[in-house]
This record gives sequence, structure tokens and C-alpha cells, in this order.
Amino acid sequence: MSDPNAQPGAPPARYDDLTAVVVNCTLKHSPRASHTDTLLDVVRRIFSKHGVGVDSIRLVDHAVAEGVYPDMTEHGVAEDAWPELFVKVAAADILVVGTPIWLGEKSSVCQKLIERLYAMSAELNDRGQYAYYGKVGGCIVTGNEDGIKHVAMGVLYSLQHIGYTIPPQADAGWIGEAGPGPSYGDEVEGGARAGFDNDFTQRNTTFAAWNMLHLARLLKDAGGIPAYGNQRSLWEAGCRFDYENPEHR
Amino acid sequence: MSDPNAQPGAPPARYDDLTAVVVNCTLKHSPRASHTDTLLDVVRRIFSKHGVGVDSIRLVDHAVAEGVYPDMTEHGVAEDAWPELFVKVAAADILVVGTPIWLGEKSSVCQKLIERLYAMSAELNDRGQYAYYGKVGGCIVTGNEDGIKHVAMGVLYSLQHIGYTIPPQADAGWIGEAGPGPSYGDEVEGGARAGFDNDFTQRNTTFAAWNMLHLARLLKDAGGIPAYGNQRSLWEAGCRFDYENPEHR
Amino acid sequence: MSDPNAQPGAPPARYDDLTAVVVNCTLKHSPRASHTDTLLDVVRRIFSKHGVGVDSIRLVDHAVAEGVYPDMTEHGVAEDAWPELFVKVAAADILVVGTPIWLGEKSSVCQKLIERLYAMSAELNDRGQYAYYGKVGGCIVTGNEDGIKHVAMGVLYSLQHIGYTIPPQADAGWIGEAGPGPSYGDEVEGGARAGFDNDFTQRNTTFAAWNMLHLARLLKDAGGIPAYGNQRSLWEAGCRFDYENPEHR
Amino acid sequence: MSDPNAQPGAPPARYDDLTAVVVNCTLKHSPRASHTDTLLDVVRRIFSKHGVGVDSIRLVDHAVAEGVYPDMTEHGVAEDAWPELFVKVAAADILVVGTPIWLGEKSSVCQKLIERLYAMSAELNDRGQYAYYGKVGGCIVTGNEDGIKHVAMGVLYSLQHIGYTIPPQADAGWIGEAGPGPSYGDEVEGGARAGFDNDFTQRNTTFAAWNMLHLARLLKDAGGIPAYGNQRSLWEAGCRFDYENPEHR
Repeated sequence: MSDPNAQPGAPPARYDDLTAVVVNCTLKHSPRASHTDTLLDVVRRIFSKHGVGVDSIRLVDHAVAEGVYPDMTEHGVAEDAWPELFVKVAAADILVVGTPIWLGEKSSVCQKLIERLYAMSAELNDRGQYAYYGKVGGCIVTGNEDGIKHVAMGVLYSLQHIGYTIPPQADAGWIGEAGPGPSYGDEVEGGARAGFDNDFTQRNTTFAAWNMLHLARLLKDAGGIPAYGNQRSLWEAGCRFDYENPEHR
Repeated sequence: MSDPNAQPGAPPARYDDLTAVVVNCTLKHSPRASHTDTLLDVVRRIFSKHGVGVDSIRLVDHAVAEGVYPDMTEHGVAEDAWPELFVKVAAADILVVGTPIWLGEKSSVCQKLIERLYAMSAELNDRGQYAYYGKVGGCIVTGNEDGIKHVAMGVLYSLQHIGYTIPPQADAGWIGEAGPGPSYGDEVEGGARAGFDNDFTQRNTTFAAWNMLHLARLLKDAGGIPAYGNQRSLWEAGCRFDYENPEHR
Repeated sequence: MSDPNAQPGAPPARYDDLTAVVVNCTLKHSPRASHTDTLLDVVRRIFSKHGVGVDSIRLVDHAVAEGVYPDMTEHGVAEDAWPELFVKVAAADILVVGTPIWLGEKSSVCQKLIERLYAMSAELNDRGQYAYYGKVGGCIVTGNEDGIKHVAMGVLYSLQHIGYTIPPQADAGWIGEAGPGPSYGDEVEGGARAGFDNDFTQRNTTFAAWNMLHLARLLKDAGGIPAYGNQRSLWEAGCRFDYENPEHR
Repeated sequence: MSDPNAQPGAPPARYDDLTAVVVNCTLKHSPRASHTDTLLDVVRRIFSKHGVGVDSIRLVDHAVAEGVYPDMTEHGVAEDAWPELFVKVAAADILVVGTPIWLGEKSSVCQKLIERLYAMSAELNDRGQYAYYGKVGGCIVTGNEDGIKHVAMGVLYSLQHIGYTIPPQADAGWIGEAGPGPSYGDEVEGGARAGFDNDFTQRNTTFAAWNMLHLARLLKDAGGIPAYGNQRSLWEAGCRFDYENPEHR
């Protein structure tokens, strides 16, 4: 049998200058247990063990308003926790989105997170790129029956569309066999816990965590995404970066 | 290495050691005109102008078999052009997938491409990572009514899931107003061509092209994705890279 | 030119015993104008003109809790408007879900609606079928750039999965050309209003409205979906309705 | 006409005048075993036991061309089996689409089926409705890890969009726990066969089959979808069926 403690050498870099925000989009308020949080813990432990500063947000515990403006209190809503939470997201090198699956879809709380991230997409960094450039995104999904990939499609698409870089195999998750059943971490017959012995989930979660670290390292060392051909400010000023209208050929 | 402070007048690096494969997943056989190809040309021109070696494949022109094995002729199918095409994909730093939209979905030809890319996902590179590690993927979509984002969700998800890195804003496309109408590049009233004056499409296609170049440059200079925590061969040999089963806590 | 008032005969039935609930899942609180509401009006007018009792809910105006239980106040949440709103949904023959598109997805408010509809799916009617059996569902979508079909896929799937019948062409919507731009009903150059001259949107919205009426009529006259082979209560009591396990052959 | 109060012992109607086409979109050519076919058998057995005429098509065995025209041989393709297959689809009251899942998506063969069904959507019946009006559609999905709902979303959406009616709970399927593993019907440890003991799959497949029968019965007895407000021919002739442009209010 293989040795679970075998380690081929050492990680190729240090990561203790990196920071990550982990947003759990469970529908359950604290202090109820969240299955998604249990799997997010795997990622957090790998990050923390290597010195990454990890900030966790359980979004449903915060009064985040619905809407697509940066601060909804400026648009008639009484309370909006988003502007304060966004400060954390904006400061972090890595964003990990965790969500449960309901009827094959990401949670409404996760959809709201995406709407609010998108609401900030007019923000530019000091090089005229979208504010999320240079950051890395990934996705952890749990459910009891079906939908990891569909949920990850939507989450990862949204993240890259607003400027995050998506590392290889940046999604991982656990579901059981078709139909209702235990969720990730639930105690099952014989005292074991659902999903904990799933090699696929273990491996993909580990690979996702490491690939987020590797890309964040590369991008931080490179000073972000090189600023050429992707600066909204310059595009609006008329720069075209070798774009040629097919009409001109 | 890239200079992140390069001015608009000059790209921050050279790209003439990079290669790209552009796969057009139109349903139309050559020599019929493909609207998707017209938009892919924008990407190809940017790539070529900077010395990137570009190989174009119009998949429907090749006898690619249906199936999920590397070579379907070993499974009873008479002909399979995929193994030969895969050599090109495997050699390229960048993969650009172009597809039309039909009924809100990517084309069946594009779905077949994904199936065959996936069929090779057991292949490992010499560090034990999935073979697509270190490569960059993006997506160009055209249609006449609706579905760029949905199609890009599926394509980009698949690419990252098998090992590609997805740069920021790696998708671009054009559709017209809801309902049937001209496709990208079709001559419209007054002699103009549909979509050619669309600033959103111009900008997103340009940004996507440049971001593919930037990430490919970074990854090539880094020697690929660092090999730690993501090697299938070592995982199977028992290495766990700080994965801790929540059960053990 | 065609005569917009031409009417071939008369509708084949009366509909004034039918009721509909129209749920607008805009992110905007009242009294802000909702583009989605403008298109929903088309459906409401057709329904009302034929005597259908129409109840409208703007979900974001109600304190609907996140969660997947019938009444979240029984699970520690202070306020939950859902149980009261569900009474209306449960009484109606037709459910029309209207939603905007954000980043290619249905709104978070729409996702929350689906979660709460799903939360009631343990409810059975007096024949042992799921409570939504015998009802008809449809979907109206507006945005300014892309995603009608993707959004409708999710909404209509969810509705049929919990027991609604989906008539032919039960989705309709409007989006503009790729990229930001006016939303449905916005005043555009020359004083016209965006989307109002779109034949595709006009036709599809009309067809969707009528097909919801036709199916609701058929199902009401039939006393609902015939009760055989689809009663959860009987399934759980052991009835199998000619299901044969392939293993037995 | 159906008796909604029929007892569990007897179906409420006869179905032996109905016909169904079952299309298996596996990627595997005959005579290789198809897991999807094994689950489709459950539906076919229920149909056949009640006298429904069932025609099965394994699409990959036929030389169906890529494209969006009714007959691709008129557009330069050497061979196209679709026109002949369409005759069967057009004659049947029920269409059951079966597909495997690959990387979370329906198969490319299934996507091609949808493209070709869509290619016929200009066809009208003798009342000016789309040709698929009055027919009923459903969906059976198998895989080994994830994606039933996502796949069903796309398939059922497409079917309703071109004119099929979707009964309640018209999708069913089987997948195993996250990760690779046995497919539906594979022999597993102890000689059992994967998925055969899954109550959720058994129930949903049975309910889907019966609901397709019930709706097909209702629609056949009603002479199809009532022809008012949904006839493309009349719309094009200028009839508006109480559509009122919001601009006119």
C-alpha cells in the first residue's frame, strides 16, 4: 500500500507573502454546520500550513444586498455589507469560492456573490486593467447528488470573465450517488464520514489548492498580468494593440 | 522575462518562440465561409504579427471519430483523424477553440473536440502532471442570437479541467439582437458588415488574444506549472502534499 | 403590410377560471422600474384580457429567507415571507418566472425562488403526486447582452423537475447585440424603445403566453396529470407500475 | 379520455395507439454495450407493455451529417441519414433522448441530434404550428460521475424550444459517487449491477415514462396543442392574438 506521508522533496517556493479569501456560499447561517466548509477546510489547511494568510467569509451571515452597484446603500437599500467585504477580496491574491448544489445549480448566495463581484468590475488597477487582474480563482463544490461540474462552469467562468486567472484543475468537489443521501462529512453506517475516503475528491482538492498557490506565486512574482493589450483605460483612449478590423483586409 | 511596466507602444516581451493551435468548430465544411473563422482571424493576426506560430484546424473537415479513447481505430472504428491532430495540440503552447452557437449551445463538432481532448487526459508529461499542464486556453464564439457566455462556460471549464490555464477574460464573441439575423461579418444594409463596429467584441477579442500570449509567456518562462502537489504519478504512488483528511482532526 | 389587428376567429376555450402567479426576479426593489416587468406585462395583458386571475410578486420586495426548508423561521431565521407567498403559488394554475440576466446567469433572486419552490417539493397533492403536478410553468428573460436561453434552461428545468408541465416554446425574452447597451424598453435614439420592434420577442412572448393558457386549460379539464405511475406515496408503499429492474431479465 | 381517479391496479387509459422514438446518443457503435441503453430499456419496457409502438435509433450507427439544414446532401455533404430518421421522429408522439455524460456535458452525438431536430424547425404542421407541436419529450441520462441535471437542462430546453411539451419530471438518470467508477449496469463487487438498486433512479425513470404517456394521451385526445396564438403562419400573416406592444400603452 502507498505511504500517505511520502513527500517528494519540498515545495518549489515560499507562499507566506500570499493571502487568500475563502467565501463559503452555504445557505445556512452560523453556527450551523456546513458540509461545504468541511471540504473548504482541506484547502485552508494546505494554504495555512504554507503561511498563506487566509480570511474566511460565510456570506449568508452578512447583510449583503441584492444589486449590481458597488454600494447598494447609495441606491436606496438600508444596509449593505458588501463594500466592507470587497476590501478583503480586493486585497487577496486568491479567491476560493465554495458553494453547495441545489437542484443542480450553485446556491443563490453564490449567485449573489458573483453579482457583487461583477458590480465592481468597472474598477481598474493602477495600470488600467480590471481590478481582478493578477488574482487567482478556484472553486469547491459539495452536494449530495449531482452538479459539481455545472456549478463550477458558472463560477469559474464568472471569475475569469471579470479578470481572475484560473489555474489548471481549479475545481474540486464531492457528491454521492444519484438521489438524496448523506452530504460531505455526514456520519454514515459504521461511523465513517461520507466522502472522506473518496480518492478523486482528495486528489482534486489537493491539486486545486496547489495550483492556486503556484499561479498566485507566478503572477505575484511577475507583478501581475503584463499590462499590454488588456488595459481598459488605454482601449478607451483609442489604443488598439494590433487589433485589425476584418473589414480593413 | 516580461516587463510589466512596458508602455503601450511596445509589448513587454517577445512571443516568437510560442505556438498556437486554433480549432474552428464550425459545422460547415471547407470551402464554405465560416463566420467564426472571421472572428478567429482577429486573434490569428495578433498572434502572427508577434511571431507566434499558428496552426489552424477546421475540425469538421477531418474524419475525427466519436469516442473517448485516444485512437478509435483501436476500438473498431474504420478511420480516426484525431491522433494526428492531437500531435499538433500537444505541441502548441496555446489552444484557441472557436465555435458557433446553435440553440444556445456549442456545436456538436466542438463537443466532439472536447471529448477527444478529454480522451487524452490520462497522458502525463515527464513530471507526472496531466499533459495539458503549462498550456493556455481561450475561446471565441459567434452566433446570430444568443449564447456566447453559456458556450464559453462549457468550453473554458473543460479546458481548465483537463489542465489548461485560463487567462483573464479569455473568452470573446459576437451575437446580434435577440432573434435570427445576420451573423458576424455578414454584409448588412449600407454595405457594412455585422459586428465589425462592435467595440465590445473588438475589445474583448483583443484582450483575450493578449492575455493568452501573456500567460503562455509566463508559463513558458516558468518551465510550466511548478511540479508539486499536482503530479498524478506521485499521487498514485501515495504522496499527499499536505492533504489532511478532515477525519483525522 | 400585415394587419396587426387581424384575428383568425376566436380562442378555442374560456380561461376565466384559471389563475396565474407572475414572479419578477429583478434585483431592483420597488418602485424602481424593471425592464423584466415591462416584458412580463405583455404576458399579463394577454392573460388578463381573457379573464385569467393574475397575481404579481416582485420577490426582492419581500423578506424571503435563504434556505431549503418550507419555513425558515422554524430554523432560526428571524423573518421569512416565503410561506405566505407559497400559498399564492400553490393556488395558481400557471407560474411565470421573469428574470434579468447578470453575467449570463439568472438573478440570485431567481435562484432563491427556485430553492424555495424546491423546498416545498416534499408536499404531495391528495393523489400522492408532487404538489406542483397539474400546473404549468414558463419563463420570461431580459438582459442587455447575452443569455436568454441559458437562463431559461435552468428555470424551465427546475420547474419540470419539481412537477410543472412545460408547454411548447414556454420561454421568451429580449437581449440586444453583444456588449452593454440599452435594456428592454429603454428609450433609444429617435424616441423608440429598445426591443419593442423585435418581431422575434413579440412572437415568442405571445406564443409562450398562449401555450401556457392552452396547457393549463387541458390539464385543468383533465383534472390534473392522471394519477398512475407517478404517485410518490404509492411508490413508497411499494407500487412499481411496471418498472422492471433490468437485473431481472 | 383519461380517468384521473384510476386505481393503482390499472392505468387510467389505453396507450396502444401511441408511438415513441427512443434515440440513444451513446458514442459507442453497435454492437458494443451501451449503459445508457440499459436504462432506456426500463422506459421501453413500460411503453411496450402498454402497447406503445417503440422505435429505437442508435444515432452513432447512422451516417448523420453535421449541419443545420434538413438534408445536408443538398449542401455538398456526400451522405446524410437524417432525412430518413426524421420521418420516424415526425411520426412519433413521444421522443425519448438518451445520452451519456462526458466531462459534465451531453455527448456530441446528442448535440448533433439537437442540431438536426432544430434544422427541421421551419416545418409547420397543417395548422401552421411548428411541426413538433403536440408531441412529448423526455430525457434519460447515464454517467459514472456527475452531470445528469445539467445534461437534462440542455436537452429538455431544446425540445420545448422547438415545440415539444415537457411533462412533469421528464428526466431521469444514474450516476455514481464523484469520480470515476462503474457505469450503470456494470457488474460490481458481489455480482450486483451498478445502479440497479438505486430507488431514486428507479422511481424517476418510472415517473418519467408514465408522465410521457399521460401527456401524450392528453395531447392526442385533444388533437394536439390548440391552434390559437401559436401559429407561425398566421403570425407572419399579421395576426397578433392580443399581443400589445408596451409602447402603445
